[in-house]
Amino acid sequence: MSVNVGVLGATGAVGQRLIQLLDPHPDFDLVSLTASDDSAGRSYREAAKWRVDTPIPSDVAEMTVTRTAADAVPDDVDLLFSSLPSSVGERVEPEFCEAGYVVSSNSSNDRTADDVPLTIPEVNADHIDLLEVQRDSRGWDGALVKNPNCSTITMVPTLAALDRAFGLDTVHVATLQAVSGAGYDGVTSMEILDNAIPHIGGEEQKMESEARKLLGSFDGAEVQWHGAAVAASCNRIPTLDGHLENVWAETDEEVTTEDAADAMRDYPSLDLHSSPDPLIHVFEEPDRPQPRLDRMRGDGMAVTAGGFRETEGGVQYNCLAHNTIRGAAGASVLNGELLLNEGWL
Amino acid sequence: MSVNVGVLGATGAVGQRLIQLLDPHPDFDLVSLTASDDSAGRSYREAAKWRVDTPIPSDVAEMTVTRTAADAVPDDVDLLFSSLPSSVGERVEPEFCEAGYVVSSNSSNDRTADDVPLTIPEVNADHIDLLEVQRDSRGWDGALVKNPNCSTITMVPTLAALDRAFGLDTVHVATLQAVSGAGYDGVTSMEILDNAIPHIGGEEQKMESEARKLLGSFDGAEVQWHGAAVAASCNRIPTLDGHLENVWAETDEEVTTEDAADAMRDYPSLDLHSSPDPLIHVFEEPDRPQPRLDRMRGDGMAVTAGGFRETEGGVQYNCLAHNTIRGAAGASVLNGELLLNEGWL
Amino acid sequence: MSVNVGVLGATGAVGQRLIQLLDPHPDFDLVSLTASDDSAGRSYREAAKWRVDTPIPSDVAEMTVTRTAADAVPDDVDLLFSSLPSSVGERVEPEFCEAGYVVSSNSSNDRTADDVPLTIPEVNADHIDLLEVQRDSRGWDGALVKNPNCSTITMVPTLAALDRAFGLDTVHVATLQAVSGAGYDGVTSMEILDNAIPHIGGEEQKMESEARKLLGSFDGAEVQWHGAAVAASCNRIPTLDGHLENVWAETDEEVTTEDAADAMRDYPSLDLHSSPDPLIHVFEEPDRPQPRLDRMRGDGMAVTAGGFRETEGGVQYNCLAHNTIRGAAGASVLNGELLLNEGWL
Amino acid sequence: MSVNVGVLGATGAVGQRLIQLLDPHPDFDLVSLTASDDSAGRSYREAAKWRVDTPIPSDVAEMTVTRTAADAVPDDVDLLFSSLPSSVGERVEPEFCEAGYVVSSNSSNDRTADDVPLTIPEVNADHIDLLEVQRDSRGWDGALVKNPNCSTITMVPTLAALDRAFGLDTVHVATLQAVSGAGYDGVTSMEILDNAIPHIGGEEQKMESEARKLLGSFDGAEVQWHGAAVAASCNRIPTLDGHLENVWAETDEEVTTEDAADAMRDYPSLDLHSSPDPLIHVFEEPDRPQPRLDRMRGDGMAVTAGGFRETEGGVQYNCLAHNTIRGAAGASVLNGELLLNEGWL
Repeated sequence: MSVNVGVLGATGAVGQRLIQLLDPHPDFDLVSLTASDDSAGRSYREAAKWRVDTPIPSDVAEMTVTRTAADAVPDDVDLLFSSLPSSVGERVEPEFCEAGYVVSSNSSNDRTADDVPLTIPEVNADHIDLLEVQRDSRGWDGALVKNPNCSTITMVPTLAALDRAFGLDTVHVATLQAVSGAGYDGVTSMEILDNAIPHIGGEEQKMESEARKLLGSFDGAEVQWHGAAVAASCNRIPTLDGHLENVWAETDEEVTTEDAADAMRDYPSLDLHSSPDPLIHVFEEPDRPQPRLDRMRGDGMAVTAGGFRETEGGVQYNCLAHNTIRGAAGASVLNGELLLNEGWL
Repeated sequence: MSVNVGVLGATGAVGQRLIQLLDPHPDFDLVSLTASDDSAGRSYREAAKWRVDTPIPSDVAEMTVTRTAADAVPDDVDLLFSSLPSSVGERVEPEFCEAGYVVSSNSSNDRTADDVPLTIPEVNADHIDLLEVQRDSRGWDGALVKNPNCSTITMVPTLAALDRAFGLDTVHVATLQAVSGAGYDGVTSMEILDNAIPHIGGEEQKMESEARKLLGSFDGAEVQWHGAAVAASCNRIPTLDGHLENVWAETDEEVTTEDAADAMRDYPSLDLHSSPDPLIHVFEEPDRPQPRLDRMRGDGMAVTAGGFRETEGGVQYNCLAHNTIRGAAGASVLNGELLLNEGWL
Repeated sequence: MSVNVGVLGATGAVGQRLIQLLDPHPDFDLVSLTASDDSAGRSYREAAKWRVDTPIPSDVAEMTVTRTAADAVPDDVDLLFSSLPSSVGERVEPEFCEAGYVVSSNSSNDRTADDVPLTIPEVNADHIDLLEVQRDSRGWDGALVKNPNCSTITMVPTLAALDRAFGLDTVHVATLQAVSGAGYDGVTSMEILDNAIPHIGGEEQKMESEARKLLGSFDGAEVQWHGAAVAASCNRIPTLDGHLENVWAETDEEVTTEDAADAMRDYPSLDLHSSPDPLIHVFEEPDRPQPRLDRMRGDGMAVTAGGFRETEGGVQYNCLAHNTIRGAAGASVLNGELLLNEGWL
Repeated sequence: MSVNVGVLGATGAVGQRLIQLLDPHPDFDLVSLTASDDSAGRSYREAAKWRVDTPIPSDVAEMTVTRTAADAVPDDVDLLFSSLPSSVGERVEPEFCEAGYVVSSNSSNDRTADDVPLTIPEVNADHIDLLEVQRDSRGWDGALVKNPNCSTITMVPTLAALDRAFGLDTVHVATLQAVSGAGYDGVTSMEILDNAIPHIGGEEQKMESEARKLLGSFDGAEVQWHGAAVAASCNRIPTLDGHLENVWAETDEEVTTEDAADAMRDYPSLDLHSSPDPLIHVFEEPDRPQPRLDRMRGDGMAVTAGGFRETEGGVQYNCLAHNTIRGAAGASVLNGELLLNEGWL
């Protein structure tokens, strides 16, 4: 028995990845696609300029795109995946929730709101019950769940592994982020060829706050953010997909590089369709992970780590994830699987 | 009155940059070029596959390359610039010094030796007098001076500015390094296109040790290394020239981002031909410096900095320098100018 | 005695290159900058996002930008360089000409109009007298001169050399064009990284028609287009600057590769400030010219050629020019120098 | 019932692709791996630096690599795939054939030899019977079959489609070739970043001669080469995989762009495991095919074409194929399938 699902903002870069993942999904039946008013009424083939590296699914290509509004989506849709620009998401996602839809959203609005669960299922699945608080406070029949920013997702599973085993105190992280993280038109070729840009607006703040909420504890009423200090420095580099990150993690207890690697290697995955096993692949080779070689591990849903070295008060290492799969579309789909599994649909 | 100079290892990537800088130099007269035995006896045009982006100087092109041995270099040469592979440098540089030549070397061997000055003139010109100790201990008529590794040079002037003003305690630094840093054949295109490599063999150790020696104090007898903790993480990215670095510097005294930027802006340059004024160019724009746009500031000899943010216990910022000019060939030339100015030639 | 000049569309990519070239120009005094209405009234520093690889000239930075309209430009300006979008150029360039200004334009509108000279001074300087016909037919006090498209300029000097010596019959040309040719925002990084695009809208038609007009003969009344058949195939590749082209030229008379190379090597340059000597640099090395190594020959104004091979009925070779200097901004400046030299200002 | 196969030169770039294709192959059982003497005796995991973007097959990883010599390969191996350097292939391939092995080779040696079939199965499967001539003339129990160079394979199916329908007279072709075509270490990053190289040694000659042999007719005794004139110009560009080619084809009969596209669209594929259906995918979009988006069509075995335009005497278009799959490893595997199907094993 599969669940009827839809995609809000289906023509964008993350929207296309969502369709690529949802089309063959065993539990979800893609029946609704929305986009901007300009695209409404057109076939998806016409409305989307398909740019993913697999051909457009032929049945999806012939679906008719609707406006992004609650009254334009069929009533028998149980779950909506949202990859709207945050300014649009901020306005319309609450409307969908009020109309009774459950929304699994990749948009950056409301991620740190008190009554909105921000989840990576393998890290903080229990935060999903914050939805009870949300329904109480907002009076919604629907629900709104968020996944974090792509650069946050890349490091948090590795930090969670260290936190559980050794307690996490301070994190310094430098990112080398792929251009796809900015959307299809986000970075021009003149900006990035033979270049790197040491600034992504708001990204450092997102990493610092979202990580602390994700690693926080939920007591049934509210999420107590983790007390670790997180300092991020974000760079755009000329890669297509895959965010690579250099991490220095200072821990409460002493940690060797072997122990840190083991904690990641042994970190549990979940019994959900899109959760890879292992969740974190640890490399022995000192020069791995690398974006082009390793971003597709676990069908793009695994986090990879390597390059462990001792550092003052903790351990230094590198980690990587596919930013538009594990870091965006796949993250929303996985949250959808969690919602289904936990009985929220 | 100009000084006769030569280049050891003249056909390599740094050797070609040395020639590009020395050919128009007002104080140095390029009269000797050495390379491997295979190249000896051939014209420089034939021996070198010239790859720099300005045409080969026509007079240099016709010079005859000799073996890299003290008896193959004319006696009236006063100063030799060395860009030999470190395994070769280790063997032959002492032979040249023993034969009476002064060697300004970019090779990585002996950089942290007790009696070898490792200098960035604007940072620690006074260390040059370690040559007296060197001559005493080794019995040389010549002398050996080193410049640091390209990734070290990029950050050290900014750290020196902070250290003088506020005292330096701890440094975390992540590098985004250009492929030219590995030499012409160092990184294949299959390795780096659409990719990044989070590992450069030995580079992190060089940055950690060289920085502390450069920032150390010289009491006339020995260099007391600076006590700061330095933790580096080094990455190769698909840029041609220009190393970009993300730095978190914790200081002894409290520091604001404005004070930190001012300390760098006001850091003095030197009255040497290749020392740019200002030494450190500070950008207001949060997305600068960028390798392609900013590496040629000060004819490739300036350090640029920007993106200042507060961080726990200090300040976070980005810096950049041209790795084969300020970080290699130009660094050796500048050390040569210091040697001339200080009367060591 | 210098001439007062202005730039129409001064904030765009070609506009910035124009300023880079005009600021130090011995004969031209830059006194007027226009842009879209949004930019009018602001300083150039504020209005332009300066992206060229040399710092913004400080005096230009403080100039006030005006609207792009004849009544907004001072009367004592003698010559205007235009790098407007063609849809804007089509509308406003005639207004400026009617108001008495001489316009040297890089915009693509009107290039093949019967009474508009399309000139590369070293190739068809005599076509400039078509301005007499233009003034008669249009009743202008001013004048409008065009330079061709960047991909056309790259090959035409080499074709002119062959045509003069051997007669030109048929041309096949494939281009490998840099992203800067599409303007700063023209090609996104997602489109071009690890990719090539075998299509540039309208480019092939421009090359085929403009080349024939440039190589045509002017009899004092009209330009008789050259009869050669020109077939172009245009590709965008991940390079920043410099268009590389593969040419097969079939000639009326038999030609050897040596003769073809000599005809290019001996092709005369002009005694104008921006005309390099030689105009065409011919390489002996079979793997040259290459965009990154050779685009700055002659300060970006030279054409380079190499790789000569025999082909059925003619000769096959490669040529290259800097697309935003020789192919755009520098082409307009050179036409301005021709106008000055020929007494049209 | 599967056939035992081996790979000669298993550690190189094409060797790795061969293993990636052979490991899951339904008809071939990979039992033997050879490499240089240095690698002999080591596990494949140790001997090969695995760089393909899927993990190394675990059973292959543990196989022991042997020397590349007939006495080092088990007798029950029926078919060997060769991706040796041509200088090695020239020497050892005949030894294997003499020892009774059937060799399907990607190496460039002997491709134009009179008694060696050079085949693309969908184009000239009938040439395989040249093996009878080969066995007669050389006295071998084994057999040697070649596939063409990657840049030749890319265009020949499209030319074959035109030749069958309209007769082929003259071909001009410019290539934009990926770096993987030169092997893992073939092109350094310093050579190709922000650059293109208009020269690949010997490539143009290969395209010109191999195409004529492939399109030739076999009368049971010898291959009569096709009489078309083929002129190629070859360029290396900064793409990882996928050769893009601009073709002008002049035909004996008149041809419209629609007819040309239809001839390619309707060109038959074969009933062999690795032959895709359709063989040639024709795009309507004028800006396709593009290397990154289209190289994996048909699991990397399809040829794609598009951009049809009229040209004097024929048609102009673009085509593309994955150079290390359809253009190398997959081409050899497909020839192996043909050999099996035709009873040569």
